[in-house]
Amino acid sequence: HVDWDLSAAEKGGFDWFMRKEIYEQPRAVADTLLGRHTEDGSLTLDEIRIPEAELRTIQKIIIIAAGTSFYAGMVAKYAIEHWCRIPCEVELASEFRYRDPIVGPTTMVVAISQSGETADTLMAIRHAREQHARVLAICNTNGSTIPRESDAVIYTHAGPEIGVASTKGFTTQLAACYLLGLYLAQVKNTMFGDEIASVMKELEGIPPLMQQVLDDSQVVVDLAARLIDQPSVLFLGRHVGYPVALEGALKLKEIAYLHAEGFAAGELKHGPIAIIEEGMPVFVVVPPRGRDQLHEKVISNIQEVRARGARPIVLAEQDDTFVEQFASTVIRLPKVSTILQPLVAIIPLQIFACELATQLGHDVDQPRNLAKSVTVE
Amino acid sequence: HVDWDLSAAEKGGFDWFMRKEIYEQPRAVADTLLGRHTEDGSLTLDEIRIPEAELRTIQKIIIIAAGTSFYAGMVAKYAIEHWCRIPCEVELASEFRYRDPIVGPTTMVVAISQSGETADTLMAIRHAREQHARVLAICNTNGSTIPRESDAVIYTHAGPEIGVASTKGFTTQLAACYLLGLYLAQVKNTMFGDEIASVMKELEGIPPLMQQVLDDSQVVVDLAARLIDQPSVLFLGRHVGYPVALEGALKLKEIAYLHAEGFAAGELKHGPIAIIEEGMPVFVVVPPRGRDQLHEKVISNIQEVRARGARPIVLAEQDDTFVEQFASTVIRLPKVSTILQPLVAIIPLQIFACELATQLGHDVDQPRNLAKSVTVE
Repeated sequence: HVDWDLSAAEKGGFDWFMRKEIYEQPRAVADTLLGRHTEDGSLTLDEIRIPEAELRTIQKIIIIAAGTSFYAGMVAKYAIEHWCRIPCEVELASEFRYRDPIVGPTTMVVAISQSGETADTLMAIRHAREQHARVLAICNTNGSTIPRESDAVIYTHAGPEIGVASTKGFTTQLAACYLLGLYLAQVKNTMFGDEIASVMKELEGIPPLMQQVLDDSQVVVDLAARLIDQPSVLFLGRHVGYPVALEGALKLKEIAYLHAEGFAAGELKHGPIAIIEEGMPVFVVVPPRGRDQLHEKVISNIQEVRARGARPIVLAEQDDTFVEQFASTVIRLPKVSTILQPLVAIIPLQIFACELATQLGHDVDQPRNLAKSVTVE
Repeated sequence: HVDWDLSAAEKGGFDWFMRKEIYEQPRAVADTLLGRHTEDGSLTLDEIRIPEAELRTIQKIIIIAAGTSFYAGMVAKYAIEHWCRIPCEVELASEFRYRDPIVGPTTMVVAISQSGETADTLMAIRHAREQHARVLAICNTNGSTIPRESDAVIYTHAGPEIGVASTKGFTTQLAACYLLGLYLAQVKNTMFGDEIASVMKELEGIPPLMQQVLDDSQVVVDLAARLIDQPSVLFLGRHVGYPVALEGALKLKEIAYLHAEGFAAGELKHGPIAIIEEGMPVFVVVPPRGRDQLHEKVISNIQEVRARGARPIVLAEQDDTFVEQFASTVIRLPKVSTILQPLVAIIPLQIFACELATQLGHDVDQPRNLAKSVTVE
């Protein structure tokens, strides 16, 4: 456990809390992963107050969240379905109650909320519990309402997040979602122990790689300076790169007030590509080369937007030299597995938004119209 | 059955095929609903080549589509889960294959494609069939590839759609989705016969109401003239109004090249509300008053954007006088059930996009960068 203290809430030499929190991510993710397994490698999530026998009866998972947490939930869906073969839906908390959802005793509802007080999410879990679902919360705030009303909790140990636009909140939620996926795979026996241990080992090696992305971020800062007059920016990704694209766009909306939108790269040609104009910056999250078909598809999406005059800004693995010929700017990412890539891929997009908003003269920590936790429905 | 003939492909006095197709919608939807039940009211979808006993074993539905068809699929999810209590997911065709989806013999995959040739959707159903799923297609083109490779088809009888931005394609897909939902409810006995007959009767009464929306559209045309200089427009909705908002935004992107984005109204305060500026037009789809809690929530969303200086353009039921005080413009919709509202609510948004694009001098039928059917992945 990592306890918060008041001094942690100071800016520590950074201009904004948000920037400080971006730089705290390697530590925050490491803290979130700390003490989650025994020496022999088996996972032990001690805040799960649901017997393993009961977890084995779970036939469906519904993840409920809003805003940035929703995008963490989208990544969780990919990981959980892939590792555990349990069908998983991701629902906007504000929509969940009104759509007459199919929920019962073999449904596990996973509520993701940094503050643990998000009103829409709280109402959604109350509704789920009335229908006898099991509720697991992924939260950052000890003793907040959502964990108190849940059957189980995985706390993210991000420390206090002050910037309204969530950064370390997001990456620690990702870490918690991966932990949940691996834990369910262990309980349901859908992965062997050595497979789980090997993913855990890779996960635990990610914080230094996040640090490397932070250390190499000058290219992103320079990019923000060059793009200061852009009225709009697009973000593309596939698979787990799609929620990264959505989150990158949301950061820009929240603090730079730009018309930024994220798309599943394959959707572009079904309509949105019409808005591409000469010189429009389009960030593209390129998946690792290990999953070659996916990599190839994204390369062809880059060519599509380039052919319409867009400026592709490409986030790609460090030894992926193939993409260079198609990119106007390349942002290098360390080599990680496909499914874990969001942990490193989101960082340049956070820095880009923070830097652009700073250069535009906005109050990055207190963007207009927004509150840190939305405690009304 | 309604057969196409070449003369139907002419503009018939309209400036654009798209506008002609918007005005053909009452007829197209009526044709799609034609001959779907016996005199005693029981539904008979004759292109369903899956035995009823097998349909009863279906435990999950995955709807696969792209672009506008995806939004029709989102509406279908609400209807099918509500009427049939079968869990239903909606997936982007371009994402489906790459996410290692959980599909098996008790899964029904519903592929929605106007042309029946959409490459992403075709690849997705091939992948689903390899995993022994049952595949049902909702298509507009007789004998096209997707229906040929499916176990069942519901043809929309929209006639040829020439405008690249889909309009009657969308509303006839909605009609087909409602038919599918009611048919499954009949097969699975989740609704009584009289309940199904009553929804069918309401559905069959919708085309004249669509005509009424078309006849009353001067207010929308005037609005487009007033908003010609807007760089961006937002769209909000909840429940089935959410896909309507997304589709309204997509129309504007496709033919007016605007930065238009649709949101689930409850998500706005979790980030996107930061982009709202003084005078920004925000379309809001207000649900019928029958479902009061939903109506009330949307009213409070209108107040939120209004408080930040936005200009709310409100689509509301004709006798919903309560909304007037919060709206800058009110667009009237005829009284229909909550779940069927998309059939009438989308029409003003189609007209708005067509009119705005025309006034901006764009080629409405052949927008830049886009093809009518996307036959490459």
